[in-house]
Amino acid sequence: MENFLEMSSGQLKATLDDLTLKYNHFKNMNLNLDMSRGKPCSEQLDISNEMLDVITGKSDFIAKNNIDVRNYGTFDGITELKEFISELTDIKKDNFIIGGNSSLSMMFDAITYFMTHGTNGQKPWIHQEKIKFLCPSPGYDRHFSICEYYGIEMIPVKMQENGPDMDFIEDAVSSDFHIKGIWCVPKYSNPQGIVYSDEVVKRFANLKPIAPDFRIFWDNAYFVHDLSDESVHILNIAKECERSKNLELPIIFYSTSKITFPGDGIAFMACFGENLKNFKEMYSVKTVGFDKLNQLRHFRFLKDKHNLYNHMKKHRDILKPKFDMVINSFEKHFSKNPIIKWNSPIGGYFVSVDTMPNCAKLTVELCRNLGVKLTDAGATFPYGLDEMDTNIRVAPTYPCKEDLQTAIDVFCLCAKIAFLKNKFKKEGH
Amino acid sequence: MENFLEMSSGQLKATLDDLTLKYNHFKNMNLNLDMSRGKPCSEQLDISNEMLDVITGKSDFIAKNNIDVRNYGTFDGITELKEFISELTDIKKDNFIIGGNSSLSMMFDAITYFMTHGTNGQKPWIHQEKIKFLCPSPGYDRHFSICEYYGIEMIPVKMQENGPDMDFIEDAVSSDFHIKGIWCVPKYSNPQGIVYSDEVVKRFANLKPIAPDFRIFWDNAYFVHDLSDESVHILNIAKECERSKNLELPIIFYSTSKITFPGDGIAFMACFGENLKNFKEMYSVKTVGFDKLNQLRHFRFLKDKHNLYNHMKKHRDILKPKFDMVINSFEKHFSKNPIIKWNSPIGGYFVSVDTMPNCAKLTVELCRNLGVKLTDAGATFPYGLDEMDTNIRVAPTYPCKEDLQTAIDVFCLCAKIAFLKNKFKKEGH
Repeated sequence: MENFLEMSSGQLKATLDDLTLKYNHFKNMNLNLDMSRGKPCSEQLDISNEMLDVITGKSDFIAKNNIDVRNYGTFDGITELKEFISELTDIKKDNFIIGGNSSLSMMFDAITYFMTHGTNGQKPWIHQEKIKFLCPSPGYDRHFSICEYYGIEMIPVKMQENGPDMDFIEDAVSSDFHIKGIWCVPKYSNPQGIVYSDEVVKRFANLKPIAPDFRIFWDNAYFVHDLSDESVHILNIAKECERSKNLELPIIFYSTSKITFPGDGIAFMACFGENLKNFKEMYSVKTVGFDKLNQLRHFRFLKDKHNLYNHMKKHRDILKPKFDMVINSFEKHFSKNPIIKWNSPIGGYFVSVDTMPNCAKLTVELCRNLGVKLTDAGATFPYGLDEMDTNIRVAPTYPCKEDLQTAIDVFCLCAKIAFLKNKFKKEGH
Repeated sequence: MENFLEMSSGQLKATLDDLTLKYNHFKNMNLNLDMSRGKPCSEQLDISNEMLDVITGKSDFIAKNNIDVRNYGTFDGITELKEFISELTDIKKDNFIIGGNSSLSMMFDAITYFMTHGTNGQKPWIHQEKIKFLCPSPGYDRHFSICEYYGIEMIPVKMQENGPDMDFIEDAVSSDFHIKGIWCVPKYSNPQGIVYSDEVVKRFANLKPIAPDFRIFWDNAYFVHDLSDESVHILNIAKECERSKNLELPIIFYSTSKITFPGDGIAFMACFGENLKNFKEMYSVKTVGFDKLNQLRHFRFLKDKHNLYNHMKKHRDILKPKFDMVINSFEKHFSKNPIIKWNSPIGGYFVSVDTMPNCAKLTVELCRNLGVKLTDAGATFPYGLDEMDTNIRVAPTYPCKEDLQTAIDVFCLCAKIAFLKNKFKKEGH
């Protein structure tokens, strides 16, 4: 097996020539494959199709408390769905606001509230001199886009095996008054699939921010999205914050986007104290109510915890072989040729790849030239700036298995070519 | 027929005694009736139930441009529904952003954008010294709530027969830099059912605001909600603004809340130039996409203009008798006893009543004591301040016909008692 790190310059050149032939072969195939977003595939969507049959024109439209879900009202969501999410998350039902189809929108709304109204006796963020957010990186590009939209300065925080660098975070929030928030995806983090350890969650709950209006945006997007049959449990941030008397620190988000339909799911927000009061006030002004028919549809389809876990197993049965395919290919190509590193996620939607420095952008570009679309290199970092140019987010869920194998073959080829081209460039060839 | 304005003090006292007996009779009935909100009744909801059968688990989920509506994406809405609303409104399809189930949310989002980002080279509204909105009154209380939420100063503008007082508006926007917006419900205004005349629409399109960031919030909530078989047409504000080169003045809103389901409909926003660019940018950050499945469901159910008008006729067949019942009762009780005035709307959801000064609050309170809920008196004015205390919004759509007759009987009784009590109080009895 070839190992680029041990080969002579001549051997490497011959290899590059050889790989270039393969590259041209793919070029002629006019591929059009997409590994750019954490998007479920059609097969996954199909397993929720029956949800569209649980409410028909002849159904009973009455939810608990005699609410006709077709009519106006109940801006914070129907009771049975609050009970459902409460059972799943072990957070009291009355701490939930159920939204529309987008948890991202609820995050946006929460930050907008703090921008325009402020919290905890502090000036609205927009009237403060400067607002900064801590951004564990690599992370979710859409979180970072919200910060950019509001001109919030982003400070990258290194991700470690068990979560973000807590020493750095504790130090930063206790010394910098301008730091008002942090983005967290605590379970199967996007894109590395990292699970926050109990210690990390506890340290979050015990943060002592110097800014009274510092908040943790706890986007638990993958809370039941396991890739192994054993579900991984993380500590309940709400409970830990109750213990540390820091109850207003976290704002917690969930969504059924990757449980039922990505475009037509239900978003949930859990929060406490003033946060809950403030966001309820905001939503009562902003809307007469979210789509309660879809809320009832979800409740009647998902039913309870047990049924939900059965449903998630169907997703897993589709996804696991795809993730295996990616990992197996990486092992085949790179276990003895260690020019890239990757994680082997046990949940979530991504495989995170680290190339050698200065090779990520080129790899993505080469793939794109062959018709294989990846998330832009750097997109997983604030401002799109991956200083070392190493991280690539691979999203294996959307293509069918056959396409995925082709796409991964292309990826492995391009990663090798990028390494070689970068090496020769560096050496001035 | 009694006429309180011509009766002697003794006759009026005897009448009050008599009415008080009737009041106590109703009191014993323990009524629980609601005429407080413009809420469709169950019968109206039922006429859209079939919409829930047009997409089932076995349906084709693919919209134009090969969009699987179950999946992520297409944040500004599916093409076929844009074409549908374009046909209805004669505004180009590409000027639309299709939202979730709430046009109120889109209004809130638009104002939020101007608050935090500003427009047309001006500072964000939140950074300007003061922001004022013109509020034709009586008007829609939820519009006013958005202003209150953002601390926007509201200036009431008198409503006249053909729309708001345009002399006042032209004068105000051309002289006060702080005036940044106006709320308009141009067709069947809430609550008076007033239809803006061609001249009024033209004068709006030709406003010369001194503030470059002045915007018209054109909430065309009742655009196809006629109560007579002849549809009333108003001038197309977009076309008029194109003509006057004021294209960025209006932001236009529509909704299917009172076409299909109030809780689960589709909201539309039409805008132009920078507005469109800015709001698209905002929504592309705020969401990966609104509920496209519900968009497709609406398209497949409503189909086209012709079908929509047939559908609206079904609403009309339910609503018209209710409005007739209210108007007939008012005529019976008050045509020769002119202590209240009312409008006879040809569309929309309300009958607006004006009592004698200082009688509206008392009328509403007396009704409430008998179990008949009305919108709070004053709610139709900015800050809830109806200086003369005369306006009451009657919403006859929600109760069934039998209940409505009882509710209106109660209303007429209470309006009389309120008049008499107020008269005696004024006279120091």
